[in-house]
Amino acid sequence: MSPSARSYQQVVTKLLRHSAFPQLRKIIDKTLPADISPVLPLLLDEDRKRILTLLIEAGKAARVLLEMPDAELRDLLQEIDDPTLAAICGSSASDDAADLLDALGEERRHMVLELLAPAHGAKLESLLAGEEETAGSLMNTEFLALDEELTVAKAIEAIRQYPRKDSFFYVYAIDSEGHLVGVLSLRSLILAGPNLKLTSIMVQNVVRTTVDAEREEVAHIVSKYDLLSVPVVDLQNRLVGVVTVDDVLDVIQEQAEEDLLHLAGVDTSERVSTSAGESFRGRFPWLAVNLLTAFLASWVVRMFQGTIEKWAALAVFMPIVAGMGGNAGTQTLTVFVRGLALGEVDFKGGLRPIWKELLVGFGNGVANGTLTVLIVGLWTSEWLMAFILFFAMIFNLIIAGVAGGLVPLILKELDFDPAISSSIFVTTFTDVGGFFSFLGLATLALRYWHP
Amino acid sequence: MSPSARSYQQVVTKLLRHSAFPQLRKIIDKTLPADISPVLPLLLDEDRKRILTLLIEAGKAARVLLEMPDAELRDLLQEIDDPTLAAICGSSASDDAADLLDALGEERRHMVLELLAPAHGAKLESLLAGEEETAGSLMNTEFLALDEELTVAKAIEAIRQYPRKDSFFYVYAIDSEGHLVGVLSLRSLILAGPNLKLTSIMVQNVVRTTVDAEREEVAHIVSKYDLLSVPVVDLQNRLVGVVTVDDVLDVIQEQAEEDLLHLAGVDTSERVSTSAGESFRGRFPWLAVNLLTAFLASWVVRMFQGTIEKWAALAVFMPIVAGMGGNAGTQTLTVFVRGLALGEVDFKGGLRPIWKELLVGFGNGVANGTLTVLIVGLWTSEWLMAFILFFAMIFNLIIAGVAGGLVPLILKELDFDPAISSSIFVTTFTDVGGFFSFLGLATLALRYWHP
Repeated sequence: MSPSARSYQQVVTKLLRHSAFPQLRKIIDKTLPADISPVLPLLLDEDRKRILTLLIEAGKAARVLLEMPDAELRDLLQEIDDPTLAAICGSSASDDAADLLDALGEERRHMVLELLAPAHGAKLESLLAGEEETAGSLMNTEFLALDEELTVAKAIEAIRQYPRKDSFFYVYAIDSEGHLVGVLSLRSLILAGPNLKLTSIMVQNVVRTTVDAEREEVAHIVSKYDLLSVPVVDLQNRLVGVVTVDDVLDVIQEQAEEDLLHLAGVDTSERVSTSAGESFRGRFPWLAVNLLTAFLASWVVRMFQGTIEKWAALAVFMPIVAGMGGNAGTQTLTVFVRGLALGEVDFKGGLRPIWKELLVGFGNGVANGTLTVLIVGLWTSEWLMAFILFFAMIFNLIIAGVAGGLVPLILKELDFDPAISSSIFVTTFTDVGGFFSFLGLATLALRYWHP
Repeated sequence: MSPSARSYQQVVTKLLRHSAFPQLRKIIDKTLPADISPVLPLLLDEDRKRILTLLIEAGKAARVLLEMPDAELRDLLQEIDDPTLAAICGSSASDDAADLLDALGEERRHMVLELLAPAHGAKLESLLAGEEETAGSLMNTEFLALDEELTVAKAIEAIRQYPRKDSFFYVYAIDSEGHLVGVLSLRSLILAGPNLKLTSIMVQNVVRTTVDAEREEVAHIVSKYDLLSVPVVDLQNRLVGVVTVDDVLDVIQEQAEEDLLHLAGVDTSERVSTSAGESFRGRFPWLAVNLLTAFLASWVVRMFQGTIEKWAALAVFMPIVAGMGGNAGTQTLTVFVRGLALGEVDFKGGLRPIWKELLVGFGNGVANGTLTVLIVGLWTSEWLMAFILFFAMIFNLIIAGVAGGLVPLILKELDFDPAISSSIFVTTFTDVGGFFSFLGLATLALRYWHP
């Protein structure tokens, strides 16, 4: 618990004891949601109810709740009754309200939606029904859209009247049928003469996204054009929502984290603080699948058990073959998974990069193979073994490069997440290919030389 | 090459042929930097010079250039003469100008700085000298700071006069000594009565960062509080710059990517499109270090070569031991590297999580060990081998958990990047520990049973 949350809680509790609500409201107005949320779990039930009421009045309740870690939020939501939850949703931005409803079980969500004004409830329901992972699930349906024929003075009047509590920075211009036709910054409105029409000062070339665009695509647009928000239009180019940069920031962070954790076979919800039981359940399936594929490698080695019986030193160098193949494969794999995420490579354009990986694999095979010859030769004087390792290394690193590139490309083409299962396939290829080439070459060698 | 860049280039070239500069300027004003930059490499030298002049006039030149991939930018910068570069820097936001100067060699940078107005050159030099990786290197030194005693009407007048070309969204209030005392959104200025003083409407509780704060910390603040920009103050709390959310987006993206690539032993500059030679040079050192550590595993196996000579089936199951240890270690490692990056764990608070990893390792050891016993027993009927694998698996997955957590914690405490070298150390621990326990148990077993 951070010391600031603790002292903040003491202030809040003291003010509550004295029923000093105006002062409390002032503090709430001045404090950012991320700083209020750690205090909620510290409060007594009664106190929390009062604070929630004040947060609803301030229009901050959903934001504050959504700043909490998922597990804590779930616990807290069970303590809050349905009418309060409905009031929270009614007082908040629609994307936040939808996120909060999403955190409830299906049954409770339904009951809370029933308590909301029908129009508002329907809007939230359509947001919730919107395909997960699309711009529609990310957008806010409150935005200021003004008729393009308005004058600047009228537009500023409309901004004054607009009840939205959080800040916004762009005003969108629409035609009489609701089509998005322009965008204006508040600054351009301040600068313009009051009698000009919006059409004459707005930027017409508005970067936009459609409601069914993938979240990653929205993030890509916002990041590419350095936008603070991007308008979302339906298929008829009618403005239906706005995605803001803070939501995009979350998507980008989640996405890069997802790739990192998926590549390692860890659940995306896992944190250092996850309980041992949960971690076990999250990690076991991946390890079990790896165990099964590792038996494929064992099966290959078993084919050569006779060779190993004659030449036990082969077992000594098996870890080199497996380790180098795995590492080289992971290097290529990671570059391709990242390239796929950033849209820098696809299946059709994959031939050239795969050819390049083959070259890099060959180069690294020769370079590391040479090192291996020197080390093994000087260490054990088994020069035959050293040269078998040399050729096995080249072969294995070529497999690593080609499989490391092809596997994610193919998985992506088949609509699987390449980050999730690529490494299992690639290590299987390098293990099987590596042991096969190493022990196969050794078996051939034994026919002609007798060490 | 995207078709849109190609057709854009045709339009631009045609307008240049007809010297239709006003039309060109209009197009440039309407087009976003990220869409202009792919066109530059397609133009003839002469044409590019004219377009650059227009971009300088529009204040967009540095932004457009910085949207180019690093390698292309370096090539293009060699084609542009020093006075043009100075004009570009002079017409651009200071953070962009500094980034551009950063891309030049030291000698050329010096020559370009000489050509700039002394005050401007000195400011850019101080930005360049600012410690890499801090808020100081990320911030923009152009911002609108107004005296807190001004009235709203005067403030709006000041905004009208402010020459900055790109948009901004907050106005900062300072006292007579330049200390940051408040922040106002443009919207709050529009809403307020013209005769109110800024002090009465500004938000006093400004989230800020210091000039020497790490980039990651700045990103964390912006993301935590959903800010569009964060003011940067010096140690005396004087406002010296502003970091905007688009720069933070880049930091977050780079940082997560860095961890991902570092964990795999790949250079952060590597892309799918990197040339074979460059990829080879970038990846070889990591593979060579891995090769050396793999020999440690070989050395352990060699200690037990006599046992393997008597019982060659041991070699068949060595890949299982190594593979499972490596995978379990990578799982833990990734969770800890991510936790360190997000500030969720540190060396002092690491004891509990390590204890948890030990438990998870034990659990996964028992679970996967049981699977292994069944598979090996039913497949080969070598039940003694199966039970040796069972205990070796438990031992190895405990090592994987403890090393996977401890190694990144220790590396971070010693001020190394835990993402870079953790996996080498962890795999060495799991390989050495795994083979030692597996072959050691087998050697003991051979003393009492004779398979």
